[in-house]
Amino acid sequence: MKSKEPFDRVSAAVSESRLWRRHVDMGQIGATPRGGVNRLALTIEDALAQTQLLQWASARGYTASRDEIGNLFIRRKGTDATADAVLTGSHLDSQPTGGKYDGAYGVLAGFEVLEALDDAGIETVRPIEVVAWMNEEGSRFSPGAMGSAVFTGSASLDEMQGKTDRKGISVRDALAETAKRCPVPSRRLGEVKPAAYVEAHIEQGPRLESAKATIGVVLSIQGSRRFLVAIFGEEAHAGTTPRRHRKDAVSAAVAAISALESLTADAHDTLRFTVGCLDVYPSSPNTVAGKVTFTIDLRHPDEATLTDIGDRIHTTVKEAAALRSCTAEITNVSYVKPITFAPHVVDRVRAAARDEGYPSMDLPSGAGHDAMHLSRICPAAMVFVPCLRGVSHNEAESATPEDLAAGTRVLARVILELAG
Amino acid sequence: MKSKEPFDRVSAAVSESRLWRRHVDMGQIGATPRGGVNRLALTIEDALAQTQLLQWASARGYTASRDEIGNLFIRRKGTDATADAVLTGSHLDSQPTGGKYDGAYGVLAGFEVLEALDDAGIETVRPIEVVAWMNEEGSRFSPGAMGSAVFTGSASLDEMQGKTDRKGISVRDALAETAKRCPVPSRRLGEVKPAAYVEAHIEQGPRLESAKATIGVVLSIQGSRRFLVAIFGEEAHAGTTPRRHRKDAVSAAVAAISALESLTADAHDTLRFTVGCLDVYPSSPNTVAGKVTFTIDLRHPDEATLTDIGDRIHTTVKEAAALRSCTAEITNVSYVKPITFAPHVVDRVRAAARDEGYPSMDLPSGAGHDAMHLSRICPAAMVFVPCLRGVSHNEAESATPEDLAAGTRVLARVILELAG
Repeated sequence: MKSKEPFDRVSAAVSESRLWRRHVDMGQIGATPRGGVNRLALTIEDALAQTQLLQWASARGYTASRDEIGNLFIRRKGTDATADAVLTGSHLDSQPTGGKYDGAYGVLAGFEVLEALDDAGIETVRPIEVVAWMNEEGSRFSPGAMGSAVFTGSASLDEMQGKTDRKGISVRDALAETAKRCPVPSRRLGEVKPAAYVEAHIEQGPRLESAKATIGVVLSIQGSRRFLVAIFGEEAHAGTTPRRHRKDAVSAAVAAISALESLTADAHDTLRFTVGCLDVYPSSPNTVAGKVTFTIDLRHPDEATLTDIGDRIHTTVKEAAALRSCTAEITNVSYVKPITFAPHVVDRVRAAARDEGYPSMDLPSGAGHDAMHLSRICPAAMVFVPCLRGVSHNEAESATPEDLAAGTRVLARVILELAG
Repeated sequence: MKSKEPFDRVSAAVSESRLWRRHVDMGQIGATPRGGVNRLALTIEDALAQTQLLQWASARGYTASRDEIGNLFIRRKGTDATADAVLTGSHLDSQPTGGKYDGAYGVLAGFEVLEALDDAGIETVRPIEVVAWMNEEGSRFSPGAMGSAVFTGSASLDEMQGKTDRKGISVRDALAETAKRCPVPSRRLGEVKPAAYVEAHIEQGPRLESAKATIGVVLSIQGSRRFLVAIFGEEAHAGTTPRRHRKDAVSAAVAAISALESLTADAHDTLRFTVGCLDVYPSSPNTVAGKVTFTIDLRHPDEATLTDIGDRIHTTVKEAAALRSCTAEITNVSYVKPITFAPHVVDRVRAAARDEGYPSMDLPSGAGHDAMHLSRICPAAMVFVPCLRGVSHNEAESATPEDLAAGTRVLARVILELAG
């Protein structure tokens, strides 16, 4: 049992109360009246969250750096200066009415592992880096998981820096603003090649809670496609224009979404179809709308299904719009294919849960995570902990200090093993 | 024929080129790149339009005043200082992507009548006032025709001053801002009792153009009801939440609007049903929407039909929302009943068109106008002129200098007769 001794020490050094306090502190940045957070990517709240993390890192003597797409790295040295680092982390940005644990937990759990290693007096061969990936949520800038996509070469730096929010502010300009608000030494993309990546996250679904499991051993992430639809009609007076003469973009959008709901109906209820944003122009009560835009989020674990259904969206929307004398343009925003995690890292997560004595279950992830991009360039895995009723992307999102600490202990064991 | 002589003189003094120039000048205030105007009520553009009108009035020595709800009056004196004034006018505010003639024409035609009377050396017994009614469009603040509603006692000053725009700015604060930007002596509501009201306006429909008529003799205005619908669901993660567990407010809104389209289907295509605004919260592509709000604009010439269909909106929306596990709240914003104009004033409009030799046709108005409120407190009528293809509430709205002048000559004859 001697070989297990450092694992038990780091596990024992994980502090449930410190970890919880960090969540409370972080949850005050961008706090909303209903108990959640509003910390959109590259806003002042995001910069404040990063500043908070940097203060904690500085107190421990860890070094920090930020790459060209705004990913923030906190580094704890290894004994081999030439070894590739083991990465862990998640994101500090949130949905506009998001919860306190989605993303923040992965960053704070990773940071707790660094502190626990310090407190246990353990050195690792490889350096360990905690990462806060830029714009995972994709709420302000689309697509989401932007920072990890650029880091892993799945997306182009230049193209992503050119993306704009609804006010027309580019990622490039918002990054410069964040650099001013929260200055950190620069690092070049590609400077660090990860030896492995492990991300802790709340489940954002109800399965662990139902099964009374503390640890979710994540096997895979379903694929997702994003589309942006624009429907073009003609503005007209609401009082004078007969229905047969109208080109009503709202009516066409309603017909299109109804048709898409039929297209995506699934007896297994596995296919996920969501219209989360819809904007009407010119948005006047007594003017027939000339234009409507809306987003489509489509997900499925099976790539063939996702390709098939997703490819039928264009025709479905155009046909529905034409029935209302309108036209439609559909843009493919992103297609992230389903991934499976590296079996040998997944096995370690399962073993660590067993070593800690936590009930665990294997499961796929319904949500996308930065780990999906990392898994394309290095062995990767995820550790899930339960959240109340599976509610997430909601200010009511909730998790217990015990579960958060349990996931961190599992993470600490896996990281220590990977970092040697 | 001697008695007609002043009518011919004022008609001859109406200047097509001066009237057109005024439209060009006014159309530059809030001009949009696509040839329309964006001059929402009580914005800086609205204040600039009022300032322009005041400059023209001042050059002629007319006096100006503004009442507590922001209606702007330009007064040309009569020979009897105690006589009630004849009112004419319309509005200077526009839709967000509105045309240059909707509203502005009625104000500029009225002003042209004052100038033509001056130039023809004609005095009237009654004073004549040109009015720019506040917030006719109802785009920024709901309900529309707010200024004329308060002026005629159809709406409460205090309640209307408390209405807010989407940014939460109240009519009260916006009025104070306009008073600062464009100061005018105050007048109290009720200080002037109109002897009669005649409003010139573009038709905003295709009937005059189709019939090759220059003048529309307006018999009535159809009734209109406005509703605000709020649908409440529950925010949830777009990737993890199965459809059967969702309370998707977008899906419920789509179902509700589909059901309302069925409710308002009309073989005669006389009933007008429009959803012109629709907003989604929190508006994130990967979050199931927790709330949707939308507006309903419903119109029909027959009061019984409007009451019947309008009253069924509540149940229709609630039932559709319930099928998607959502709830709904429906607010009755306004109900303006159908009105018919005073036959003896309508007859004068028809006679004036005949005297000018213009082809005219009797018709109802599909759009609401300030005249509908005025008709409840004094004899009222309207003069329509054609607009290209009937297009209005659209930057492409267009009318010819000849038609605008023709309507003004008819207006001048009717006003002169009413003012004695």
